[in-house]
Amino acid sequence: MAPVTNGRVLFNSIATGFPEPGKTTVYDTTQVIDPETVPLNGGFLLKTLELSIDPYMRGRMSANVKSYIPPFLLGEPITGYGVAVVVRSEHSEIKAGDHVYGTIAHVNYSIRKDLSYLTVFQNPDKLPWSTFLGVLGMPGKTAFMAWKEYSQVKKGETVFVTTGAGPVGSLVIQLAKRDGCKIIASAGSEEKVQFMKEIGADVAFNYKTTNTVEVLEKEGPIDIYWDNVGGATLDAALDAANDGARFIECGMISGYNTGGATNTRLFQVIAKSISMHGFIVGRLEPKWGKEFFATIPPLVASGEIKHREDIYEGLEWVGDVLLAVQKGTNKAKAVIHVADE
Amino acid sequence: MAPVTNGRVLFNSIATGFPEPGKTTVYDTTQVIDPETVPLNGGFLLKTLELSIDPYMRGRMSANVKSYIPPFLLGEPITGYGVAVVVRSEHSEIKAGDHVYGTIAHVNYSIRKDLSYLTVFQNPDKLPWSTFLGVLGMPGKTAFMAWKEYSQVKKGETVFVTTGAGPVGSLVIQLAKRDGCKIIASAGSEEKVQFMKEIGADVAFNYKTTNTVEVLEKEGPIDIYWDNVGGATLDAALDAANDGARFIECGMISGYNTGGATNTRLFQVIAKSISMHGFIVGRLEPKWGKEFFATIPPLVASGEIKHREDIYEGLEWVGDVLLAVQKGTNKAKAVIHVADE
Repeated sequence: MAPVTNGRVLFNSIATGFPEPGKTTVYDTTQVIDPETVPLNGGFLLKTLELSIDPYMRGRMSANVKSYIPPFLLGEPITGYGVAVVVRSEHSEIKAGDHVYGTIAHVNYSIRKDLSYLTVFQNPDKLPWSTFLGVLGMPGKTAFMAWKEYSQVKKGETVFVTTGAGPVGSLVIQLAKRDGCKIIASAGSEEKVQFMKEIGADVAFNYKTTNTVEVLEKEGPIDIYWDNVGGATLDAALDAANDGARFIECGMISGYNTGGATNTRLFQVIAKSISMHGFIVGRLEPKWGKEFFATIPPLVASGEIKHREDIYEGLEWVGDVLLAVQKGTNKAKAVIHVADE
Repeated sequence: MAPVTNGRVLFNSIATGFPEPGKTTVYDTTQVIDPETVPLNGGFLLKTLELSIDPYMRGRMSANVKSYIPPFLLGEPITGYGVAVVVRSEHSEIKAGDHVYGTIAHVNYSIRKDLSYLTVFQNPDKLPWSTFLGVLGMPGKTAFMAWKEYSQVKKGETVFVTTGAGPVGSLVIQLAKRDGCKIIASAGSEEKVQFMKEIGADVAFNYKTTNTVEVLEKEGPIDIYWDNVGGATLDAALDAANDGARFIECGMISGYNTGGATNTRLFQVIAKSISMHGFIVGRLEPKWGKEFFATIPPLVASGEIKHREDIYEGLEWVGDVLLAVQKGTNKAKAVIHVADE
């Protein structure tokens, strides 16, 4: 096999507002690699199949932010959750043909020296590889594990889910439905509203055209708030909360591109005995991982749990999709299909 | 006994900023009462002994605020925690000479029809009645019960306590000390700083002259935050929090007189997996009441737990003291001594 182009998405400059395709990141085709002969030095060669584009990645594009994950390195490929296949291996714990899930560079081929941040996994049901980035991957785990850990759900309670058409929110809606809740759900397009209704939301609305405060006043009070948004929406949820409400703080995308959101209604935490829980899904995984894989894949395979993906073809789309997931213009869980096996 | 003046502190006008003595409340001496002959209609007559002035009372002076307690009624006496003695009784569950703790009107004499919001209590150690408004009353219970319920304290952790010289904060400091914590504590005067050191604070500072952010950067990160302040101090605590920190949201006095505080660092709840707990002490009382009364009174009687009171003589001081506890110019737990037995 002759050398081939090793396409790479490089971190090119710190983002201050929204990430800009071609500026914040650039797609580079100057590197070539010969998969058959490239030295592995005891490691293994990965061919990237699928890459996940997620809202949290914005945090890695900022300067000097103390965060739970380090920023991307300028001039180096960005990384994210992905699925890859092993092309060649000199490592005793992994062999050619194995599939791995974990942190993968946004490149066609990468050499790894060990299994740090990677898990070898099986796919007995021959589900599409992209599934392992969405409903069976980090977003699905996020929804399932935090719901189990923090919701303290009781049948008949009212739940408000933001970004309810996304890969996390749409699973939260379906879990809440299975637990017998009334579900209020918001998203940013009529098409997303339609999808939220299909998967069980009792009240679904487009926050761009409908006033969140008014919906919550009419349909609340709420017992559980699944926050992916922060800012004014979080304030609205604080005002609409029932005594003893649980707030599951999954994301605050409203502030990611504007230097942070402002809140003015936090005293409701005291007035209403609210508990608010931030979390990192990785820390919940040891406790809930087994139940997740026992519960969710069969429901996905049978179609009882629905999920959607918005698949883009080729690494050259990464910059655009990074922007799309910040603006919410993607249609569903955003995946870059990098290569077939 | 001839009729006597029944002094009353009346709610006179809605407060928009700080409460103003003589305007927000007025001390009224126009009512007379004859304790020996006033009709009880099956109820009982209370003589007020001690009244507690607490920061939360500001919330009852605002208009149209949905809060956990209703606003005061214009033209009527304000109410608050207090201790009273029964002068006469026609009620089968209570007799002359009994002492009650609970919600008491800010008047010399009041007629009650039943024991709603009142508890008959004993004082075998002959502790001053005012003790039951401070370290053995609502503030003491607040500190003890929320610390037990939410701190998840582990020996060696670092705790940041705001308003650490107050009746709640000073007990939190002493509980945290007994649990083996490093304690950072703030208050608003050098005298309060000195007291916080005496009761066990490892780092005590005057937030008016020392920068909170700098103290927390140097002495943090913090594992537990006891919030009585909210606003910028809460933001500083969010920035200084350790992963997995617990925030006990007891009060947000920084916003009570300014229309609410603003927060901009709430994303740290997610970044650091923080859990934040608002609470109402009354809801914790069924779970922790027994342990509180078994633990704290003996420690107070023996002097192992220290407490301070700032006692003002007479109902005519209520307006001034309401303002003082909002500005923090009181020296310790503020109590109005209304009458001797």
